[in-house]
Formats: sequence, C-alpha cells, structure tokens
Amino acid sequence: MSAFPFEISGRDGAARTGVLKTARGDIRTPAFMPVGTAATVKALTVDQVMSTGADIILGNTYHLMLRPGPERLERLGGLHRFMRWEGPILTDSGGFQVMSLSGISKVTEEAVTFKSHIDGSRHVLTPERSIEIQADRLGADIVMQLDQCVSWPAEEGAAAAAMRLSDRWGRRSKAAFGHRERQALFGIQQGSTFADLRRESSERLIEAGFDGYAIGGLAVGEGHAAMCEVLDYAAGFLPEDRPRYLMGVGKPVDLVEAVARGVDMFDCVLPTRSGRHGQAWTWEGPVNLKNARFAEDDSPLDETLDCPASRDYAKAYLHHLVKAEEILGQVLLSWHNIAFFQALTAAMRAAISEGRFEVFRRDFHARQAVRGAG
Amino acid sequence: MSAFPFEISGRDGAARTGVLKTARGDIRTPAFMPVGTAATVKALTVDQVMSTGADIILGNTYHLMLRPGPERLERLGGLHRFMRWEGPILTDSGGFQVMSLSGISKVTEEAVTFKSHIDGSRHVLTPERSIEIQADRLGADIVMQLDQCVSWPAEEGAAAAAMRLSDRWGRRSKAAFGHRERQALFGIQQGSTFADLRRESSERLIEAGFDGYAIGGLAVGEGHAAMCEVLDYAAGFLPEDRPRYLMGVGKPVDLVEAVARGVDMFDCVLPTRSGRHGQAWTWEGPVNLKNARFAEDDSPLDETLDCPASRDYAKAYLHHLVKAEEILGQVLLSWHNIAFFQALTAAMRAAISEGRFEVFRRDFHARQAVRGAG
Ligand SMILES: [Zn+2]
Ligand SMILES: [Zn+2]
Repeated sequence: MSAFPFEISGRDGAARTGVLKTARGDIRTPAFMPVGTAATVKALTVDQVMSTGADIILGNTYHLMLRPGPERLERLGGLHRFMRWEGPILTDSGGFQVMSLSGISKVTEEAVTFKSHIDGSRHVLTPERSIEIQADRLGADIVMQLDQCVSWPAEEGAAAAAMRLSDRWGRRSKAAFGHRERQALFGIQQGSTFADLRRESSERLIEAGFDGYAIGGLAVGEGHAAMCEVLDYAAGFLPEDRPRYLMGVGKPVDLVEAVARGVDMFDCVLPTRSGRHGQAWTWEGPVNLKNARFAEDDSPLDETLDCPASRDYAKAYLHHLVKAEEILGQVLLSWHNIAFFQALTAAMRAAISEGRFEVFRRDFHARQAVRGAG
Repeated sequence: MSAFPFEISGRDGAARTGVLKTARGDIRTPAFMPVGTAATVKALTVDQVMSTGADIILGNTYHLMLRPGPERLERLGGLHRFMRWEGPILTDSGGFQVMSLSGISKVTEEAVTFKSHIDGSRHVLTPERSIEIQADRLGADIVMQLDQCVSWPAEEGAAAAAMRLSDRWGRRSKAAFGHRERQALFGIQQGSTFADLRRESSERLIEAGFDGYAIGGLAVGEGHAAMCEVLDYAAGFLPEDRPRYLMGVGKPVDLVEAVARGVDMFDCVLPTRSGRHGQAWTWEGPVNLKNARFAEDDSPLDETLDCPASRDYAKAYLHHLVKAEEILGQVLLSWHNIAFFQALTAAMRAAISEGRFEVFRRDFHARQAVRGAG
C-alpha cells in the first residue's frame, strides 16, 4: 500500500488524468515539474513558480550533494525549508547526471564513483547513499532509485546489462528506503529502444514493487519519433494504477504524445533554459524574441495565460530585454515558459476529463505547425 | 509656479522631509530612486521594485536613445507603458553618460556628438533634442537639463567653463521644455569642488528658474569627505522651497550625510550593482554573501525589512545562490538592497518628522561601523 494515493478521475484512450496525493499537497496529472537544479528553479522566485500552477518541482541530487552538500542541507532544515518551496519535491537519484556531467565516472556492481565538475573532488554514490541523501538529508517527497542509463544508440547487450544492474540497484534502493508514511519511492524502467528489455525491466520493477514508475533512458538523442515508438509499448508495461513518469522530457509535442500513450508526469529544463536564451514556447510553437520582427510588436506573448510575463508586456519589451541582455528578460521568459507548460498540462487534464483529448491533440498539432520549423 | 507642488512637512537642522506631488503620484522625500537604465531596474520586476516602497525610478536617456530608440519608444506608448511602471519616472539628460560611456565624444557650444558604445553609430545630442527625447518621446515626469560635468580633479578654469556652458544649455533646455502641466524640469548645479563656482551656478539657475535643482558633478571620484565639504555649502545655495537632487549618489553613509545638509533626492546604481555581485547593504554595513562564514548561517539578512528577499531566506541560501552563480541570487540581493535603501530613506523621513535626526545619524554611524571597513 503506497504512502501516496493515486486517484485517476478520467481516461480517454490511453491518456489519463487524476491526482497523486502527497503529504505536502496534491499533484494534478498530467503534471509538469519545473527543474530546480541547485535549489532554485533558475531565474525564478518560488512565488513566481507557484503562480504558474506548478504543483511539484524537481531537485537534482548530483548538484545538491556537491553544493551545498547533503549534510549541510539537512542541518539547514532540508531542501524545502532552504529554498522556501512548500509543495512536494521530487529528487532524481543523481545517477544520470553523474554520468552526463561529471568528467570521469566509473560504474561497478557496488556504486558509481565520480569526480565533481566543480572542484574535481572524488565521490561515491551507492543506491543506499542516494536514498539516504534524497530521503533523509534533502527530505524529498518523491525519491528515485539509482539507475544506470545507457547512451543512445546502445548495443542490446549493454542495454540489457544496464537494465539488470538498474534492477538490482532498485531493489537495494527499496531496501534502504524501507517503509515511509510521508515519502514515496519510484522505480525506473530501462532497456533503451528494445521492447523485450523494457518488458523485462517492468516485470522486475513490478515484482519489487514501487510507489510509482519512471521511464528512463529516453530523450537521450533518439528523437521524437523513436521516443514515441518506445512509448507505444513502454508505458503500457507499467502498472495501470500507479503514476508513470517520463524523465527529462521534453518539448510540448513530446508531452502531448506521451500523455496520449499513458504518461502522467514530466520534468525538463527546456522551459527555463529556453527562457534564458530568448525563446518563448507558445501554442503556435517556439518563438525567438531576438528576432527583429518583434521590435515594434505591441502584443503580449499570450494574454490568455494568467501570468504577468505573458500577459502584461509587449513582445517589443521582451525583445528589447533580450537584445540588451537584461536579467529581467531571462526572468520573464523563464516565467512565461513555465506558465505555458503548466497551461499545456492543464489543457490536457481538462481535455481528458471531458473526453475530447483526441480533438485537443489534433488541434494542438495544427496550431504548433503554424510557424513551421520555428 | 511649478507643475509639481513640493510640501515640506518637517525640518531638523538642515534636513527636511516632505512630499513632491507629481501627476503620477507622490514622492516622499528624502527619496531614493532606483536606477532603471535600459527600461528595467536590473534583475527586478516592477512589482518587486514597487514592493520596496520606491515612489519613483530613474531612466537613462543615453541608453534608451540608443536602444530601443526614442521614436520607437514613443510609438510603443512611452517609457511608462513599455516597462509597466505606473509611478513617476525621472530621466537624466544623457550628457553624463555620453561623456562616461561612449568611446568618443565631442562637446561644442551647440551640442555633444558621440559614438554609440553598442554599434559605433554617430549621434548628436543638443539641449533641445535631450528635452524632446525625455519629455515628448519617453514621457518622463521629471526631465533634466543637458549639462556638462567635468571629471575630478578639475582645473578651476575648466570647471568654470563647463558650469557656464551648462547654464547656457540649461536656458536652452528650459526654452525647449516650455510650460507643462504634468511634467517638471530640473536644472543642474555644477562647479566641481569650487565654492565660488557652485554659488555662481546656483545664481544662474535661480535666475532661469526651474521646478527643482540637482547637484551634479559629485560622486566622480572625490570621495566621501570631499563630497561632504562641497555639500556643506552647495545645498544651501539652492532654493529652500524646491527639491534638491544629488545625482548618482550613493552609499548609505553618503545619503545620510547629504540629507543632513539639506538634500531631498538621490539615485544610484549601487544597490542593484552590488546585488548582482553578491553584496548586501545592511544597517551594520555591507555584507559579502560569498564569504564562507555564511555557509551555515540560518538567519535572514534583515527580518525587520518587509521584503521577502531580506526576511524569508537564510543567509546560507543566499550564500549558496551566489556561490552557484544563480540568477535568483542576483534577483534576491538586488531586491534586498533596494528595499534597504528605501528603509533607510523611510527611517530618515521619520527621524526628521520627529525631530530626532541627529540621534538617528549618530546611531546610524555607530551601527555601520560595527563591521568596520566591511
Ligand atoms: Zn529535457
Ligand atoms: Zn552611484
């Protein structure tokens, strides 16, 4: 029996909408989690993030274990208190970022050993230590098992070995996590683009039993079409009655197609990273505010969004801020993008509830195509 | 008869407190004006600036005439609408920044000619064009005359020539400005560190007649003591019944000492610039949040300030953000610093009203000295 009830209130095809009830508040699904890498959703105050309608944010264990450090964070009252976010927080296990950001990393049966990208210091991350950091030091609401993610494209043998190591690490993670009333542990499906491996991974996860199930190892370069092909089967391998979380995804179109295949939760740095680089996401696709055609455009980015950044300023002003490299431009565009991603998940929730998700999906693709390749 | 009544409600020694009533709202004096160089108070939303208690902000004509350009700004509805600041705005004339920021500038009787620091393009700024940009294109509430400011130290002859040119430019500025119901024009006293020149400048300004009077040519390297020596006489040369504005100043100690000498208004980039570099201003002096001693300091910067940045976050969190070079650190420290400067002017207004400014001033110096040289 999971600590967090997951109540699915509507279905439309494979798409579902519902609520994951955590000790720190409800997460309405489909849900998009803004990424708060280093104890801050980049450029935004927690009030700004909250005002977009985000129910949960994500923290990165790799970054936080290096700075300010897990024991220091615990002494300062945990991650929520430190950054003043009162809603739920999901933390990743650190594994993916160790392998992608740290210069040198070595994986053994026991642990992953790596050097800090900040100061070159040496660190060891075991499944048990990752759980301890996430659950006991940072105080995350949703904790991820340590896993190994292969790069793309992968040999089937290497993908199988990483998936089975992830399974063994998942069981160790579960043993370390134990039983908790106010925190949940998610397992992670691996298997690259191989259906048999995704199936085997899921069977192993279900046997171990987790509070929720993530789909890992996607959005690593395979592209939208290949990701959709994997999701055609991978989501369905996971339990119907628990949340499914597609890690590190993605563009609006990725979210819509993943929801159509039964995914409930997402995280991605895209909205904040794009925002810092002058790009706004809209119902009509991405917009580069640097473009000279906005220099005298007096219309707002999107006046239907309940977000000052989208509603109150002319595109000409955002264009000016981006050209002048003003911090406020990064703030307003990050804010708008997070608000847009929240509006997108809210629109999907409403469409599923009302049994018109396929119409929504078709309209969405038609509108996104208006600007072409963007 | 000036468009903007200036009602002095309290005096204590040379210090005064009152209200300058503009068409867009009251400015409580002594007033600190946050600098919004390029149509943004750097790193802050207008709501954040407003929440600190700022009654007025400053815009830089030099930056705005280069980007987005005065005619474009006018087509977009003027500076207030462009940046969404509803209170009064004071714009400088552009002259000081032309001479300090532009690579090459040439001053003649007629105008200052310069090259843009952005793209090297050639521009001409006459007193008339400066007024046109500020009053008609940008729509500033308080408009500054074009002046020439000499660097420090200056030869008396050069200082006299610049002061007399400033006087002639001031009269041309006034003629160009004409009579306006909803906008005010300020003249600028020059004369470097020469009392006779400051007196002559003031007599000329008073003869021409302005809505307010600025003290220019200070905070250009002469240091706190030399600045105070000039203010000992320079403020008193200006009319008693109109606002006195000390341009480009300064540190908290500069504000307190200038108010003691009869100054009413200030502007400075210091709070936002310091904030972007990890420095916080407090009643106990400047604090460098990068310092390792804050790594586990769980106390807020100043819980007496009604500002989330000062009150809600531990210094340890601000330290972390500064070390990690997170934009939110720049936002929160800029916000705190502006809030502190507003709290400082509010405290001075209260002390003057209650006839205890000398006690306030002595306490202020004692507390600022606690951390020594900072
Ligand atoms: Zn992503
Ligand atoms: Zn200054």
